[in-house]
Amino acid sequence: MAESLYNNQDIREETLLIIKNAMVLSIDSQSNYWEQASIVIRGNTIESVGKIDVAEEKYPGARVIDGSGKLVMPGLVNTHTHVPMTIFRGYADDLPLHEWLYEYIFPIESEFVNAENVKLGTRLAIAEMLRSGTTTFNDMYYFVDEIARVVDATGMRAVLSEGLIDFAAPNSPTPEHGMRLSEQLINRWSNHPRVTISVSVHAPYTSSAKLIQDAKKLADRYGVPFNIHLAETRKEFDESLDRTGFTPVGYLESLGVLGANLIAAHSVHLTPEDIELYAQRGVSVAHNPECNMKLASGVAPVPALLAKGVKVGFGTDGVASNNNLDLFEEINTAAMLHKLNSNDPTVLDAKTVIEMATIGGARVLGLDKEIGSLEPGKRADLIILDMKQPHAHPVYNIYSLLVYSMKGSDVETVIIDGRVVMENRKFMYLDEEGLYAKAEEVAAKIKERGLELSVLNGKKNLHQS
Amino acid sequence: MAESLYNNQDIREETLLIIKNAMVLSIDSQSNYWEQASIVIRGNTIESVGKIDVAEEKYPGARVIDGSGKLVMPGLVNTHTHVPMTIFRGYADDLPLHEWLYEYIFPIESEFVNAENVKLGTRLAIAEMLRSGTTTFNDMYYFVDEIARVVDATGMRAVLSEGLIDFAAPNSPTPEHGMRLSEQLINRWSNHPRVTISVSVHAPYTSSAKLIQDAKKLADRYGVPFNIHLAETRKEFDESLDRTGFTPVGYLESLGVLGANLIAAHSVHLTPEDIELYAQRGVSVAHNPECNMKLASGVAPVPALLAKGVKVGFGTDGVASNNNLDLFEEINTAAMLHKLNSNDPTVLDAKTVIEMATIGGARVLGLDKEIGSLEPGKRADLIILDMKQPHAHPVYNIYSLLVYSMKGSDVETVIIDGRVVMENRKFMYLDEEGLYAKAEEVAAKIKERGLELSVLNGKKNLHQS
Repeated sequence: MAESLYNNQDIREETLLIIKNAMVLSIDSQSNYWEQASIVIRGNTIESVGKIDVAEEKYPGARVIDGSGKLVMPGLVNTHTHVPMTIFRGYADDLPLHEWLYEYIFPIESEFVNAENVKLGTRLAIAEMLRSGTTTFNDMYYFVDEIARVVDATGMRAVLSEGLIDFAAPNSPTPEHGMRLSEQLINRWSNHPRVTISVSVHAPYTSSAKLIQDAKKLADRYGVPFNIHLAETRKEFDESLDRTGFTPVGYLESLGVLGANLIAAHSVHLTPEDIELYAQRGVSVAHNPECNMKLASGVAPVPALLAKGVKVGFGTDGVASNNNLDLFEEINTAAMLHKLNSNDPTVLDAKTVIEMATIGGARVLGLDKEIGSLEPGKRADLIILDMKQPHAHPVYNIYSLLVYSMKGSDVETVIIDGRVVMENRKFMYLDEEGLYAKAEEVAAKIKERGLELSVLNGKKNLHQS
Repeated sequence: MAESLYNNQDIREETLLIIKNAMVLSIDSQSNYWEQASIVIRGNTIESVGKIDVAEEKYPGARVIDGSGKLVMPGLVNTHTHVPMTIFRGYADDLPLHEWLYEYIFPIESEFVNAENVKLGTRLAIAEMLRSGTTTFNDMYYFVDEIARVVDATGMRAVLSEGLIDFAAPNSPTPEHGMRLSEQLINRWSNHPRVTISVSVHAPYTSSAKLIQDAKKLADRYGVPFNIHLAETRKEFDESLDRTGFTPVGYLESLGVLGANLIAAHSVHLTPEDIELYAQRGVSVAHNPECNMKLASGVAPVPALLAKGVKVGFGTDGVASNNNLDLFEEINTAAMLHKLNSNDPTVLDAKTVIEMATIGGARVLGLDKEIGSLEPGKRADLIILDMKQPHAHPVYNIYSLLVYSMKGSDVETVIIDGRVVMENRKFMYLDEEGLYAKAEEVAAKIKERGLELSVLNGKKNLHQS
């Protein structure tokens, strides 16, 4: 086993940070909400939270953040995304899925996905996630070592995986190579306080039965999450029935890979039997409502999944199909979408939605012992929202306000693992303007190549100027 | 005819304002978009726009706004809302429509809708709309003279109407009184540069045939818009068939009130014949996708309406059922919703959506000669967006970026009728913090009364602490 690169030296244990006089939403098992409360953070851990005495003499040397007019809550958890794709934001929109993927995304990915661009896209994505209140994300892509280094450097928390697939990946000529790479990464990053390496296969229709089973074994061996895109489109569902005689979920059951570490992204097209299988095997779902709407894939049966006790968290998917990483937007859309789809305005009530976006997402990632709520002993992953906004008034019910009225842009300060990584919307570990300039520079090249490809293939050029 | 209260003295004709070096999206008939351009505003009017020479010596005394790293576009048009209801934001959520309306909203409205609270709610709503890029709204409520005074004082543009109904309204004991009031208001505000008074009846199921016909005549007489809630729910559709033998739209046709000044809010449940009638009569639609989703009312057939050439704009409806007034959110949701609902990711492409939110909304309100695009001779209603945001990069297609990635919170500066009403997110004519304190003060009383009512009626109290 390779030696671990990183140790938990990010935050010294004696570091003391206090947030006082804030509205605090805990998402703990008692659903505590205080209109005025404080939080004491020692090192990377929450020491106490609630109506506690934080007099200066009790905490000498503490750094104090005044929370007046602000709301503190756990950071949001994005359970499914592909952060390096941020450089392709808006590259190809309003197209049928197949044309979008095969004629626009795949050709441009094959030319521009390299270590440098992966780091750039990851930085841009982390900037966007911090700005909109996400403190943990679960990613599937390529060049994961590079992604992990950016996560390490920016103070973010992430679960990262190489997307194993039956073809050559940009950084992996064969799936066997990808598998070895995944194992190396698991070991290399095993002691990092904020990085978890997991295992992913792309989808049942792009990966052999053997690859899926081997990947699952690898995930089991190391006790890490196992990700797959599953039952995303009607086409996938129908072709699975044709090809295997099973639904996509039934096919994975036949391979023996459904289990409590499986995170099934999308899970739009499920039969009642599929839902039952998820419940029995403890499978989790990463629900990406905006991507599913935008690509016209369908609506995941979230109320039915929740009714069976299946763990469901929210994901944004990659920005090439969303086109943003703002989970506040995603939860607002989800709360409305399922009311419409169920013809029942009581489903996915605001409290359920906020729990799904925090502790629920943490459960999906197997991190609920560490994050997802503000409780003593948990890692200090929290966001501070500015309530001095017209849409933040009046407050009748804090969950309703958060889901239906507030926005990612209300997030002012972000603390991850006890460390302030964004303060008053300023990034501590990211050069914002340099990042935007660099993104536009790379985009100019991609745009130029896109124009060439569109001429070459007789396709419409989707870009301007 | 009563004397008009106001004259166009807001902006002196010699006032000169120049925005230079900005990205400019015109929404003109040539779909002009410049990556670097300027706009000259004289008095309340756009004098020139595009790649023009704005050298200082040509415009002595002009105030110059540096548009570097910013995007200028027409302000958004909200074609349907009830701004005073902002004080009820989040009062009752996640409930069936009938319970929401009859057991929560109506009882509390009957006690708290008065001139003072209407002014408060309107101020809070205008603050929220300016912050998220709306420069014109179309409202139906009560105490319209009070609403108009707030619009006048805050620099906003609005089309306002008393909601005529067969019952006693808070400021009108009978519909006849309401009708006289509407006419008085039309005359009183007739010369105001930013206020248009229109005529509204609440809905076919709350207003007699005579009231609907009289209101339509009044609107025709003064050449102002005529608003109605129409075909919002399946219940309304079914009951209309039972009661009148017609669909809601067919019923209005039988009354002879369908016409080019009619703005039919919602229009969710339409038959192909209804859509044909809309097209023939030139009826406009105010489409409120988020409200319709949240209350599980259904999805308006917007692609079919557009295909027939029906004018469609976006509305937020009131915040009691949305719960915000952010049109950027609304258009993002709409673009995704219709792709899902049509099972076709090409419908409501980004350019169509942006046009609907600007010039399209202006057409719905009969104001497209004055607003909705950045063209010489038009009123200067425009918004300046900050592009120094992670989600604003990279830019491949400006329409896609605006619809799928950017947010209301990116709006930094707002100009209405040539006047800067919000600059760098600071309001020129609103006391922001006083507003929030007052909103919470009124909400505390509403909350207290809500608790009493819930005890009295054996209902669940939906609020906290």
